[in-house]
Amino acid sequence: MSFDAPTVIRTKRDGRRLSDEAIDWVIDGYTHGRIAAEQMSALLMAVFLRGMDYGETARWTAAMVASGERLDFTALRRGGNPLPTVDKHSTGGVGDKITLPLVSVVAACGAAVPQASGRGLGHTGGTLDKLESIAGFSGVVSNDQVRQQLHDVGAAIFAAGQLAPADAKLYALRDITGTVESLPLIASSVMSKKIAEGAGALVLDVKVGSGAFMQSEPLARELAETMVALGAEHGLPTCALLTDMNRPLGAAVGNALEVAEALEVLAGGGPADVVELTVCLAREMLALAGIDGCDPAQTLQDGTAMDRFRALIAAQGGDLAIPLPVGKYSETVTAARSGTMGDIDAMAVGLAVWRLGAGRSRPGEVVQSGAGLQIHRQPGSPVAAGEPLFTLYTDTPERFEQAMAELNAGFTIGHSPPTRRSLVIDRITS
Amino acid sequence: MSFDAPTVIRTKRDGRRLSDEAIDWVIDGYTHGRIAAEQMSALLMAVFLRGMDYGETARWTAAMVASGERLDFTALRRGGNPLPTVDKHSTGGVGDKITLPLVSVVAACGAAVPQASGRGLGHTGGTLDKLESIAGFSGVVSNDQVRQQLHDVGAAIFAAGQLAPADAKLYALRDITGTVESLPLIASSVMSKKIAEGAGALVLDVKVGSGAFMQSEPLARELAETMVALGAEHGLPTCALLTDMNRPLGAAVGNALEVAEALEVLAGGGPADVVELTVCLAREMLALAGIDGCDPAQTLQDGTAMDRFRALIAAQGGDLAIPLPVGKYSETVTAARSGTMGDIDAMAVGLAVWRLGAGRSRPGEVVQSGAGLQIHRQPGSPVAAGEPLFTLYTDTPERFEQAMAELNAGFTIGHSPPTRRSLVIDRITS
Repeated sequence: MSFDAPTVIRTKRDGRRLSDEAIDWVIDGYTHGRIAAEQMSALLMAVFLRGMDYGETARWTAAMVASGERLDFTALRRGGNPLPTVDKHSTGGVGDKITLPLVSVVAACGAAVPQASGRGLGHTGGTLDKLESIAGFSGVVSNDQVRQQLHDVGAAIFAAGQLAPADAKLYALRDITGTVESLPLIASSVMSKKIAEGAGALVLDVKVGSGAFMQSEPLARELAETMVALGAEHGLPTCALLTDMNRPLGAAVGNALEVAEALEVLAGGGPADVVELTVCLAREMLALAGIDGCDPAQTLQDGTAMDRFRALIAAQGGDLAIPLPVGKYSETVTAARSGTMGDIDAMAVGLAVWRLGAGRSRPGEVVQSGAGLQIHRQPGSPVAAGEPLFTLYTDTPERFEQAMAELNAGFTIGHSPPTRRSLVIDRITS
Repeated sequence: MSFDAPTVIRTKRDGRRLSDEAIDWVIDGYTHGRIAAEQMSALLMAVFLRGMDYGETARWTAAMVASGERLDFTALRRGGNPLPTVDKHSTGGVGDKITLPLVSVVAACGAAVPQASGRGLGHTGGTLDKLESIAGFSGVVSNDQVRQQLHDVGAAIFAAGQLAPADAKLYALRDITGTVESLPLIASSVMSKKIAEGAGALVLDVKVGSGAFMQSEPLARELAETMVALGAEHGLPTCALLTDMNRPLGAAVGNALEVAEALEVLAGGGPADVVELTVCLAREMLALAGIDGCDPAQTLQDGTAMDRFRALIAAQGGDLAIPLPVGKYSETVTAARSGTMGDIDAMAVGLAVWRLGAGRSRPGEVVQSGAGLQIHRQPGSPVAAGEPLFTLYTDTPERFEQAMAELNAGFTIGHSPPTRRSLVIDRITS
């Protein structure tokens, strides 16, 4: 069958379905340069505004998986027994350093986590950016090394590289063309990478709230259901937790600051919400991996998760003996009056940290490892006038003003504590 | 004020108005390469699907006019008197060679026509493509030569060149991204070129029907009203005729074939519909130019229009003594049975001629001057089985099959004549 790009674009523009053959042709043609970026971006905007049904989304996902290699860890053995693999993906939040303790906990319980990871864009952070604040750490890992690490350490966190290259190219295009927040495009992007990555099962952390791409619960639920169905269709058992992202996770936001907080959690301490979400997600992952009898919370207390984390970092060249970087300049926000700390808005904090230099405006930009923000008073805490509420860090002090403006719009001091929210809102399975 | 492209794109994507400043920034940025083609195409698709109101369309038009030079012929004199200038623009049809006799008639009546012209794209032809089938003719004319020709000959037909370069760049982009048939984008594209061109007044021939970009009358009417208003706003008196484009104009479709038919009309003959539309449009142009007492039909009979046409072609290097090219191969379609010729569909004929090689699939392609189609039986004519109905011409005979398939879907032989339609449907003024 022969296609041309304007005809395919007009089909979606006019609200009609794209055929399986048209989708295969578009994804393959764009990956190999036969369809121009300007044609693909017009199609993406048409998809954004006209939508794709589940069938189209599934085919789009399959075509992106087929654009590159698909890893396979089913033959992995440890001590003569099959080694179950399982991964987790978060749709992106503020202060979301969960991957760091989580992979360590799951590895300590005896499963292995192959995680193809991304970089931060806009107000959300990326796991590789965080880990690269550790001296020497590298996310560039060969497939053979991934396999070796899964066996020896129980985890590898690596740049997606040749997995679903169509998605990598599309994601960069969506970022500059205002076509990111589309349910079928998000679902196919996440799932194509995760299917290609080759883990035996997948747990999704789908964020809902001001700091998430999906700000409404019905949309987040639909996204979760779509991704769970896409996983099942590709033989990847998948379940999803809907979790709250109206507030930042934990007290640290920014690359090195979040690594430090993850280390606290791995040492048995750290903020309660980070511990709670780590343990919840670990339970889901272990259940899908077929491992019972291991208590994730226990591995945080007995040091076995910390051991896994240290081994992971060492295996990828990182040196935790070298102090984590801290922004050269800091400013502290103090309470203008006494009262009770109200809600802290995740989006405002995310944008403030992005302004401080921790995030990027376009792919490939260098981020500041030491830039970020520490929260000293959590929502509901009593506050006395003059007490420190936040400390901001950056290497480029001219950034303070804009960051402060973002932050100031995102919190209040009042007379009563804010509404309590559950961190885990719902659980979605196929 | 500072903008970034993704924010502007998202504004329109989400159905909000673009501010004047945002429009100026986008058009200027795209013209000068500061906004990437893939960003502009996403914005164009958002405009296509979300629309622009009149105010946005007016600003978009003004920004495109401002992207290049704006010609000015108000100082032109002939024999001591001001020389009125007036132009005509057609939204594009099939067999629409009207410009050729029309500029000649208007020049013969004493006005001057500076026409910045375009090339054909898709199923519609372009005046420059038609004229270039005359040996030696060139549309590359300096501004000084345009001025000289307006004085000496009364007409110049030239490539738009530096007029509204933003539009030229945008038009090429729209063509490959499925974003052509948008009312605000068509209106601003036409009017920016025509405003920059510097004629003193403008008559629009807005086509309605199967062979037009606007296939429904209400849409064509809205397009005409928008363009007439844009003209008035820029000090360019504009009126519009809504004319039928369900059938091809005349009996010849294709570059050289249409020049030959135009010469018949200029010699006092030719198909009645071509003569009728030429005369109607000439009356409108002469009225706007303030010329009365000249009968356009008379100039076709007395040879004065033909004189102007010959002078125009000679001034631009063309030699009418050299025979017009004819496709090396021809095929004739004969009537399968006797009866009455039914309607001939303009779109089907346009696509057939495009398949024969007379049009282009992408900007810059070379067209075949001799490719085209001659209609031997007009709608309503009696037909005997075996009589020739159409002759098709091309230099590349492998094209016949596809052309024939397009054409066969576009006509029938029946028992009663098709419905008669008025050629001129309505007249729209500000």
